[in-house]
Amino acid sequence: MRIERDLMGEKEIPAHAYYGIQTIRAKENFPITGYPPHEELIKAFGYVKKAAAKANSTVGGLNKNIAEAIMQASDDVIEGKLNDEFIVDSIQGGAGTSFNMNANEVIANRAIEILGGKKGEYVRVSPNTHVNMAQSTNDAFPTAIHIACLYLSNGLITALNDLVATMKKKEDEFDEVIKMGRTHLQDAVPIRLGQEFGSYRRLLSRDLARVKQSVDHLYEVNMGATAVGTGLNAMPAYIDQVTKNLAEMTGMPFHRAEDLVDATQNTDAYTQLSSTMKILAINLSKIANDLRLMSSGPRTGLNEINLPPRQAGSSIMPGKVNPVMCEVINQISFQVIGNDHTISLASEAGQLELNVMEPVLVFNLLQSFTILQNGMNVFRDFAVEGIEANIEHCKSLVENSVGIITAINPHVGYETAARIAKEAITSNRPVREICIERGILSEEELDRILDPKEMTNPGIAAKELIFGEE
Amino acid sequence: MRIERDLMGEKEIPAHAYYGIQTIRAKENFPITGYPPHEELIKAFGYVKKAAAKANSTVGGLNKNIAEAIMQASDDVIEGKLNDEFIVDSIQGGAGTSFNMNANEVIANRAIEILGGKKGEYVRVSPNTHVNMAQSTNDAFPTAIHIACLYLSNGLITALNDLVATMKKKEDEFDEVIKMGRTHLQDAVPIRLGQEFGSYRRLLSRDLARVKQSVDHLYEVNMGATAVGTGLNAMPAYIDQVTKNLAEMTGMPFHRAEDLVDATQNTDAYTQLSSTMKILAINLSKIANDLRLMSSGPRTGLNEINLPPRQAGSSIMPGKVNPVMCEVINQISFQVIGNDHTISLASEAGQLELNVMEPVLVFNLLQSFTILQNGMNVFRDFAVEGIEANIEHCKSLVENSVGIITAINPHVGYETAARIAKEAITSNRPVREICIERGILSEEELDRILDPKEMTNPGIAAKELIFGEE
Amino acid sequence: MRIERDLMGEKEIPAHAYYGIQTIRAKENFPITGYPPHEELIKAFGYVKKAAAKANSTVGGLNKNIAEAIMQASDDVIEGKLNDEFIVDSIQGGAGTSFNMNANEVIANRAIEILGGKKGEYVRVSPNTHVNMAQSTNDAFPTAIHIACLYLSNGLITALNDLVATMKKKEDEFDEVIKMGRTHLQDAVPIRLGQEFGSYRRLLSRDLARVKQSVDHLYEVNMGATAVGTGLNAMPAYIDQVTKNLAEMTGMPFHRAEDLVDATQNTDAYTQLSSTMKILAINLSKIANDLRLMSSGPRTGLNEINLPPRQAGSSIMPGKVNPVMCEVINQISFQVIGNDHTISLASEAGQLELNVMEPVLVFNLLQSFTILQNGMNVFRDFAVEGIEANIEHCKSLVENSVGIITAINPHVGYETAARIAKEAITSNRPVREICIERGILSEEELDRILDPKEMTNPGIAAKELIFGEE
Amino acid sequence: MRIERDLMGEKEIPAHAYYGIQTIRAKENFPITGYPPHEELIKAFGYVKKAAAKANSTVGGLNKNIAEAIMQASDDVIEGKLNDEFIVDSIQGGAGTSFNMNANEVIANRAIEILGGKKGEYVRVSPNTHVNMAQSTNDAFPTAIHIACLYLSNGLITALNDLVATMKKKEDEFDEVIKMGRTHLQDAVPIRLGQEFGSYRRLLSRDLARVKQSVDHLYEVNMGATAVGTGLNAMPAYIDQVTKNLAEMTGMPFHRAEDLVDATQNTDAYTQLSSTMKILAINLSKIANDLRLMSSGPRTGLNEINLPPRQAGSSIMPGKVNPVMCEVINQISFQVIGNDHTISLASEAGQLELNVMEPVLVFNLLQSFTILQNGMNVFRDFAVEGIEANIEHCKSLVENSVGIITAINPHVGYETAARIAKEAITSNRPVREICIERGILSEEELDRILDPKEMTNPGIAAKELIFGEE
Repeated sequence: MRIERDLMGEKEIPAHAYYGIQTIRAKENFPITGYPPHEELIKAFGYVKKAAAKANSTVGGLNKNIAEAIMQASDDVIEGKLNDEFIVDSIQGGAGTSFNMNANEVIANRAIEILGGKKGEYVRVSPNTHVNMAQSTNDAFPTAIHIACLYLSNGLITALNDLVATMKKKEDEFDEVIKMGRTHLQDAVPIRLGQEFGSYRRLLSRDLARVKQSVDHLYEVNMGATAVGTGLNAMPAYIDQVTKNLAEMTGMPFHRAEDLVDATQNTDAYTQLSSTMKILAINLSKIANDLRLMSSGPRTGLNEINLPPRQAGSSIMPGKVNPVMCEVINQISFQVIGNDHTISLASEAGQLELNVMEPVLVFNLLQSFTILQNGMNVFRDFAVEGIEANIEHCKSLVENSVGIITAINPHVGYETAARIAKEAITSNRPVREICIERGILSEEELDRILDPKEMTNPGIAAKELIFGEE
Repeated sequence: MRIERDLMGEKEIPAHAYYGIQTIRAKENFPITGYPPHEELIKAFGYVKKAAAKANSTVGGLNKNIAEAIMQASDDVIEGKLNDEFIVDSIQGGAGTSFNMNANEVIANRAIEILGGKKGEYVRVSPNTHVNMAQSTNDAFPTAIHIACLYLSNGLITALNDLVATMKKKEDEFDEVIKMGRTHLQDAVPIRLGQEFGSYRRLLSRDLARVKQSVDHLYEVNMGATAVGTGLNAMPAYIDQVTKNLAEMTGMPFHRAEDLVDATQNTDAYTQLSSTMKILAINLSKIANDLRLMSSGPRTGLNEINLPPRQAGSSIMPGKVNPVMCEVINQISFQVIGNDHTISLASEAGQLELNVMEPVLVFNLLQSFTILQNGMNVFRDFAVEGIEANIEHCKSLVENSVGIITAINPHVGYETAARIAKEAITSNRPVREICIERGILSEEELDRILDPKEMTNPGIAAKELIFGEE
Repeated sequence: MRIERDLMGEKEIPAHAYYGIQTIRAKENFPITGYPPHEELIKAFGYVKKAAAKANSTVGGLNKNIAEAIMQASDDVIEGKLNDEFIVDSIQGGAGTSFNMNANEVIANRAIEILGGKKGEYVRVSPNTHVNMAQSTNDAFPTAIHIACLYLSNGLITALNDLVATMKKKEDEFDEVIKMGRTHLQDAVPIRLGQEFGSYRRLLSRDLARVKQSVDHLYEVNMGATAVGTGLNAMPAYIDQVTKNLAEMTGMPFHRAEDLVDATQNTDAYTQLSSTMKILAINLSKIANDLRLMSSGPRTGLNEINLPPRQAGSSIMPGKVNPVMCEVINQISFQVIGNDHTISLASEAGQLELNVMEPVLVFNLLQSFTILQNGMNVFRDFAVEGIEANIEHCKSLVENSVGIITAINPHVGYETAARIAKEAITSNRPVREICIERGILSEEELDRILDPKEMTNPGIAAKELIFGEE
Repeated sequence: MRIERDLMGEKEIPAHAYYGIQTIRAKENFPITGYPPHEELIKAFGYVKKAAAKANSTVGGLNKNIAEAIMQASDDVIEGKLNDEFIVDSIQGGAGTSFNMNANEVIANRAIEILGGKKGEYVRVSPNTHVNMAQSTNDAFPTAIHIACLYLSNGLITALNDLVATMKKKEDEFDEVIKMGRTHLQDAVPIRLGQEFGSYRRLLSRDLARVKQSVDHLYEVNMGATAVGTGLNAMPAYIDQVTKNLAEMTGMPFHRAEDLVDATQNTDAYTQLSSTMKILAINLSKIANDLRLMSSGPRTGLNEINLPPRQAGSSIMPGKVNPVMCEVINQISFQVIGNDHTISLASEAGQLELNVMEPVLVFNLLQSFTILQNGMNVFRDFAVEGIEANIEHCKSLVENSVGIITAINPHVGYETAARIAKEAITSNRPVREICIERGILSEEELDRILDPKEMTNPGIAAKELIFGEE
């Protein structure tokens, strides 16, 4: 154990620990979730501290030896070697001050070691004076969030892109599978299974565009803002430099926010990201629901498609296989929608120069990224890829349906058609049979009008319409 | 037009109007939704003002003639005769001050007329000095909300009670209808349709209990609190009297909140009410979804039940009938859940001695009452009452299902049962046939084990188990 | 009264009514909110029906006389002359079928009149066969929603644009007002009031960009999709024409959705719009909260700014003026956030070829447009425009604050600075005085370091740093 | 490594692992959050399996040796010795089947060891046939959730109870502290700080009652329901016994749900619990906001109370101390409110005989319990306990305020009072001074009317009213 002191008193720190007294205080104050900071957030802090140390050194604010030790220590953080030293809780008071202090202390102590000192010798490298030089939590933390989100967004975008590609594959594969379209869960008119997957593909493509667009705002960071965005205590040359360093070190096109006051207090970049992920979640859930409906059965449901079996579905019902990969998508979606709610609450609670609710905001934001990415990957691999169509069953449902009356409608008028439909349902007989029996249309006419494939394209069934009025 | 004045200047008021300058100011300030106050809220203000006038008169604070005129004017409000005079918007700044001012002015001007004066002669009856005597918006408005909610809760409770009764009727009616139970939308084991309706009935019965319990908190009101709950400017004798008057006039057991400071600033009675309605909404939506699933088809869905047709379902597909009464329940539920969200936000935004967000809170709260009541009434009359079971179809689905393998499970072991199930699905043959063919169980044994009705009760299928280990 | 009939039976219709039996059925089925359709939605239906009639006539599907009568009747709808005939409830089962049927019946009957017939003579003009020709609710309704949203978005964009302009005006006006910046509601470092308004301006500018971007998706419509997007019963030539007509009639650049199946079943354009409005609401609420904080007092709060008084603030506390225009913004925001929740629920509930929850979705969507626009207009005119700064009070708060220690920090080190700060707070003395007394910095140095204006710009206070290490 | 097989093939299992092939499949399928099951949920599964084994043994279904080995293995689970073996993700497809399978496998393998066998020798003890005997996930999992919630509710109730006690202590301590009451963040009328804490105490007491009441529903469990609540495969004698065993083993008054079908498919007990916690969260957030407002400053805010400093508040601003314990309460509240949203979505998504969304539901539910309990404990210890009042400052704010005009109001009339108030604000002079100068009231009258303590109780200031009309 070593002893560290601050204005409030002293604390024992485990001898091996790179973190220090402020981290210990935060650990005591916030035993809330038990979840440590997200690993991407830790890595992001490594980049922030490294970029700042280099800029401070360049502009002459920071001794070169100290700066190099800090940069080397930051590399350890970036590489994940010190992840276990980040022990503050994901939900914490303050606007991320405890995250930032934890990072400052870990990097200071590692830098001290690099310089040949012993942990706790803060005269060599001070967490606040050196590691945090020209920074505040209020610029370092949001910048770290941006970096973390950008790394996670890569994974999300890839997963979404891959899912879109798989949907396209199924769209093509199922292009000839005629099945019954349903509206209100009631028999409507024929459609092709490929058209349905095409609809999923296009929907998710728009989500992809939305995600990309939302992510673009993250390249704007507020390094140099210090406490409230006025840049107090940060030299202009440093401000110029630090974001350039960040861009160079990460390979990402970061640039300084035009107005640092604005960029320090407002969290709309996060609410936009979260909303975008919420919309994606809603859409994924709709698709998962469709697949669960279409694969329902096998005997007493719709049974139009088969999902690949992934695990025994029941501890009591032998042979039961459930659409678990769809169900996990639904649940991820519910989580992401709930997370968006928390993020909205946190964003609205910003006051004056700062939003102190950022820890819970970022906890939910990073979680949404992670679970959506993870979920889409297994959904694609373990569900969508292996979907098979029950082609014959789909076809027979179309042939037995009453909904095909719609195609007959323009040829006989809405009222006549409605009467035929009603009789078909009541008597449990085919629409076709009734039409012929009543002499309403000939077999040849019906063959043309009721061609299933034709019915799934615009206007084709309508092309020989004879309009009553003319 | 007449002219009225206050500290901010003067305004023209339509000569016929009972409202006055403060109402006009509010009207100008808040042209937001276009929705006037809920009629039950107007009525409730009538009771509040009447009860206060009587109490002020009794304790000697208010001239008897004036008091009587105010009481008579309040009766007009209670009877709905002056509804058109309540013109302030449902969403407004302030904590309901504009509602209260509107009520004060309308009642003052009506009382002036009763006393033989002309509208605007506030020396006779002053909106603030007389009608609002010993009150603040901060006690008058919450008390009015309580009264309005109680009136609306009567309708809600009746509607819910009636729906429970109808569910019970269907539970009995469908007691012998054997159908396939489904979990994960996959075939599970047999169940009776009556058991399903029994489950709806019990669920809604618990909702009924929850609603009643939440409503009970509303009998506690904060009349006498005045501005912040300290009762400044209200005489103790008045405070004693006013709630008694309210109880007597409404026939409802109102009593004074034990701590008026608490009762003035906290809105948990509303969040509890709204949460209760949200839970009811969630449950109604689940039931509506079940009914939509079970009635899906008619040809390409589950087709287990028929909902009574209520209107043509499509402008293009003749004969289509949709489960519109279920769909409206879903939509009402979504609205109520969204309303609960708004109410939560409004409640959380209370600060120090007051929650100024009460107008939007009460707008959503009263709407939830109204639409749930209206929705349940038509849902019951136009959907649940007329549901018919497709008994034969339900039965045939059970007989063809693979899920009945579960009943065989304890007799042959999970692994064997799973193999039979898999074969049944792959080969599209009945479970029963495979069991016999393989000599796994005799026809007599299968008759007993697979008796459909037996399978829907605890333990019956298990009663002749032979356990491998013994 | 006249009698109308459909497959379910007959109904009495008031003789004067332009609506017919389907409308009456819907009215009976859905007595839910009491709110009729939004006027912009009615107008939008007018455009849809007019564009379709013209296209049907052009391609030869519809008799020219009938088409012209329908177009003329549609004009009446567009001009709002028949608003009272749209009587179906805003929340209704079905996917808007009742809205569409209501529109079809009103236009048919008006067209019949134009052609010299009597209401109800549907052999002349049939609601389904003629007015609804080549359409389904499932294309007509979403298209009408798009049109309605676009009209409303004009108002929203104008209001937001104007609010941004006003924020800019205040930003300039308050550029020299030095005040204390606060983080965590605790004294931080100086900032200029103009910088705060600049931050609001930039935030709202981004909202403006988000709204515009979301609105752009609405120009893509699904006319020609008919029931499920396959275009069954619609001739290709009609599909080509109808959207062109719509664009021409409205003057808006409508184009046909690339994939009509996708455009018919997915509602992400709405969730994106709603999310965008939710983010705007969150941001407006944050700004309103800031203004309420800064104007708190006047004697026992921050009292940095004055909001223009708009109405008496209390029925019991004379002279009290409340920040009602900010409070109404908070409440509108809560409503919009709740609406977004309802919209998300409705969107997620889409199934297969259609989202039947669109009525509640559009009810909330249009309401959000309306109340945000209305709210921003009065917020701008009645609050933001008239804000005044209490310049002297703001200045004195800065001078008395401890937070200016931050500027001293780089010159003396974090630990020394922290000790001075602690002593200043405990002893209730100025930071400046303690620094001089202790000989830490000279008066001249302090004059330069603590120049208030300098402290509100990047780096200036830091420019003469002497770094311990060098 | 050992090999295990099921109908889908075989998998390698680490030799040391107690879990088996189904657990491995679930692990592969659901790499979602990285969060393992909550420890209380694992413990609860231990009780469920132990109670079932004993009941199966008692009724003769299960060999006594096997039963005893299962019970002993379950004890290891209860004691937390096997927590590391529960490796399935908190968010997973299925209705908790993977949790249940994981428990079945761990207990089976541990029981096999106890009986002298080697892991994987399932002929000795089978996860499905023995450990899961007469159970389904659909009764075992909900029952385990109930048990876990009950254990967690003990902690929550204790924490809430303790917080109420601390509020009471502060209520008494601050009973004589006169301060300005505020409505709309504007000066209202005097109140005592003790009254404000009394209001918090009462609010939280009602939350305590709500939590207790919600928890009571959890004693009703559905053991014996098996797959869909019909009890298929469970002998009546077993059903009688198993819940009794559970009650005895846990010491909690469990009883069997009256209707097992209902208890298997409905999740309203959870939504009620979550709603109750949401209301608690809303209320805690309001209290935290009040404390943050009252402690704002120290120099440029309200500065009425001091919160105990807990950690350095800023990495850049020396001496800054932030209300971090309040801020963490706000954030916990936002999380709980978001969790409630997810829970609502999951509950609404139940279909027919089962709610398959229970994993995400229970993940959020248990998290809400945990973080609320943890948060309230540190909030009490580190914030509320140590709050100090700035008595003199509070008093001086009252004396300088304009709001005391309200007490003068009944003596001079609303209009006169309003004029005095306006003059006081404009001229920045005391209300008292103006009253004397104008000869409106004498010094003696003002002494009586404006006695600060008197102004904080009902009616006292009103007792000498002279009413103009009489």
